[in-house]
Amino acid sequence: MPPIWNRLMAERAANMKASAIRDTFKLAERPDIISFGGGFPSVEAFPRDMVAEISAQLALDASGAALQYGPTEGFYELRETIAEKMRRQGIDAKAENVLVTGGSQQALDLLGKVFLNQQDPIIVEKPTYIGGLSAMTNYLADPISITLDRDGIRTDELEAMLEKRRQEGLPMPKLCYIIPNFHNPTGVTLSKERRVRLVELAEEYDFLIIEDNPYGELRFEGSGQPHIKTFDTNGRVFYLGSYSKVFLPGIRVGWIVADEAVIQKLAIAKQGTDLCGGSFGQQLVLEFHRRNLLDPLLTELKNLYRRKRDLMLAALGDHFPEEVEWTYPEGGFFIWVTLPPYLDAQAILLDAMEEERVAYVGGGAFFADGTGQNTIRLAFSQADDEKIVEGIRRLGRFLKSRIDVMRPSLAASN
Amino acid sequence: MPPIWNRLMAERAANMKASAIRDTFKLAERPDIISFGGGFPSVEAFPRDMVAEISAQLALDASGAALQYGPTEGFYELRETIAEKMRRQGIDAKAENVLVTGGSQQALDLLGKVFLNQQDPIIVEKPTYIGGLSAMTNYLADPISITLDRDGIRTDELEAMLEKRRQEGLPMPKLCYIIPNFHNPTGVTLSKERRVRLVELAEEYDFLIIEDNPYGELRFEGSGQPHIKTFDTNGRVFYLGSYSKVFLPGIRVGWIVADEAVIQKLAIAKQGTDLCGGSFGQQLVLEFHRRNLLDPLLTELKNLYRRKRDLMLAALGDHFPEEVEWTYPEGGFFIWVTLPPYLDAQAILLDAMEEERVAYVGGGAFFADGTGQNTIRLAFSQADDEKIVEGIRRLGRFLKSRIDVMRPSLAASN
Repeated sequence: MPPIWNRLMAERAANMKASAIRDTFKLAERPDIISFGGGFPSVEAFPRDMVAEISAQLALDASGAALQYGPTEGFYELRETIAEKMRRQGIDAKAENVLVTGGSQQALDLLGKVFLNQQDPIIVEKPTYIGGLSAMTNYLADPISITLDRDGIRTDELEAMLEKRRQEGLPMPKLCYIIPNFHNPTGVTLSKERRVRLVELAEEYDFLIIEDNPYGELRFEGSGQPHIKTFDTNGRVFYLGSYSKVFLPGIRVGWIVADEAVIQKLAIAKQGTDLCGGSFGQQLVLEFHRRNLLDPLLTELKNLYRRKRDLMLAALGDHFPEEVEWTYPEGGFFIWVTLPPYLDAQAILLDAMEEERVAYVGGGAFFADGTGQNTIRLAFSQADDEKIVEGIRRLGRFLKSRIDVMRPSLAASN
Repeated sequence: MPPIWNRLMAERAANMKASAIRDTFKLAERPDIISFGGGFPSVEAFPRDMVAEISAQLALDASGAALQYGPTEGFYELRETIAEKMRRQGIDAKAENVLVTGGSQQALDLLGKVFLNQQDPIIVEKPTYIGGLSAMTNYLADPISITLDRDGIRTDELEAMLEKRRQEGLPMPKLCYIIPNFHNPTGVTLSKERRVRLVELAEEYDFLIIEDNPYGELRFEGSGQPHIKTFDTNGRVFYLGSYSKVFLPGIRVGWIVADEAVIQKLAIAKQGTDLCGGSFGQQLVLEFHRRNLLDPLLTELKNLYRRKRDLMLAALGDHFPEEVEWTYPEGGFFIWVTLPPYLDAQAILLDAMEEERVAYVGGGAFFADGTGQNTIRLAFSQADDEKIVEGIRRLGRFLKSRIDVMRPSLAASN
């Protein structure tokens, strides 16, 4: 980049780097490659006929509401509808507690914009969703990674960190970013006990919680945990929802639930960010709600993604070498794979694409602290059924070949 | 707002205040009020039948491209199409020079995010578009207002300011924000001589120029000026375009043209901001381009808005008191009204709504330096023809009544 811009760019721009994931996605677009990379919904999941019918109706509507600028906060009726949905899930909310956003990603950006100063410490899961992380590090926040296990973030480790910082007089974290259900990238779900504990710690150490829940409704089995926000008595929890995984990502509709004063501040920030969100997409969501089409769609989606998950889990059992471990997600889009520590998933990805025409996301990208090199995120959401089986077969063969190469050298070095 | 959030909010949040315009808009929504407030396109301008047909087609398309996540930079074919449009307008651009954004507003936000540190001086017109201003003051930039006259920003005043700051060793401005055509709020167009001079000054004093041009294609008469960017040899000018005024605002599609390295950086910032824009809206624009529907639409729009402008200008001549002056815009959406200096347009707006059921935007909101209290922005774009005439009649009557009240007291105090 020529010095003319370098010199004039903001400090935060130096922090903005192209992600490895992104570059890999471009390669993985080649049609002969089976990709488990992108966390995209399945095209099979889109209710195309109804979208066509309702889109045409919205376009023809004489008010032009779907085509005109809309309110910065989102259409009031949609905010009411979302508030009602939230109340059914145990969160006390009215329309004024809801801000409609351009997907959850914009919600994360607006929260960063309103809450984060340079070098503010924030708490993130280890690993965490890279988009959430970058929304906040774009404002030069300083992430502190806390281990995540099969019950979600380790609240004991979190507490120890907080207590240590307090005793050492270090700056205390302002925000804690959590993906509680079918976590991206690992697929795990935060236990109820830890949800309760998280809110207690937020009270005790005075921080706010971002509960980012795009996958929560896609539970295939078992019973869900109450939202973290249901334990919130002082407005410390900001709940983030999205229509991207349970309806359509291409219209960019998500939302934040928070106390009214916070929503008002976020709306002012949003004015300077995009003036208003897309009216067409919001009206489409609203009409699907009015016609009660989203609940039956959700049932279909759960069946679809359960089938894909089961296919992938079975294929993993059939084709992956015994040295490799993986998670069992009860919902969502992702399975998390742990390779032997001597394999670097990102380093061998190009070989996997070259030799076996299969792609994934190297898990290291999700670790704010630079660890996790031997992990892989597999999305079972997007690939066709037969490609799931074939892709896992290829990937298993590839991993075996790499383990076979490394094993003798390891033995020699021991 | 409870102290819990106040204490935890970022410094920049203190700067984010609800605008007077916004609050006024809400009042002006009452159906009995004729509003010249919002700079919205006319609903008459929306090609509803074709949007219905093409939307349905997009929804049914088996690829699902309009419903799925899209590339952060925007669809490549749309970027190519925009680049071609830019080349026809004298700007040397290829797809890689184009970033598709969520309206121009998001372009402004991304430029702020990538370029502005706290307290960076920026140059703005006096008056300027409040949304552009807030996009940049959200990053705590420090605006310097330069007078705008009927030929646009006063480059002599700009040069004097720059030279003075250089000599005094003050921090030099990093960005200059310009709305060159049918300026919001004043409707004036920047002369060719000043466009050339602006780029010379940018070179001499090392700053960047944001050329924000949402209205430029809506020229009703006379010949247009070359884009500022056509005089740019070193990539200092960022050109911003939008489909909101010449197609549909409700789908949020705009763009930035800049050097490829800048586009790449902005795209990384955009990833953390919204992941990607709306696929549906982009595909809709693209299909309108493919079918060559946008040029005939533009011709219709120019006829529509010319008629509305002429109606408003005629009504202003018929009904406004002689103490009041206004601009003659050759295109766009706005007429700018200057009242006698003893009237405060914002202070009397509630009375205008109450007594005469007519609304406008008090021009003071567009002045970064707090002046301009005796100015009004009138949008002729949205109101029905008969309401334009009736509304101006009412507003003229109202202003006469206020001038009549003030005149005797002024005479007495002299």
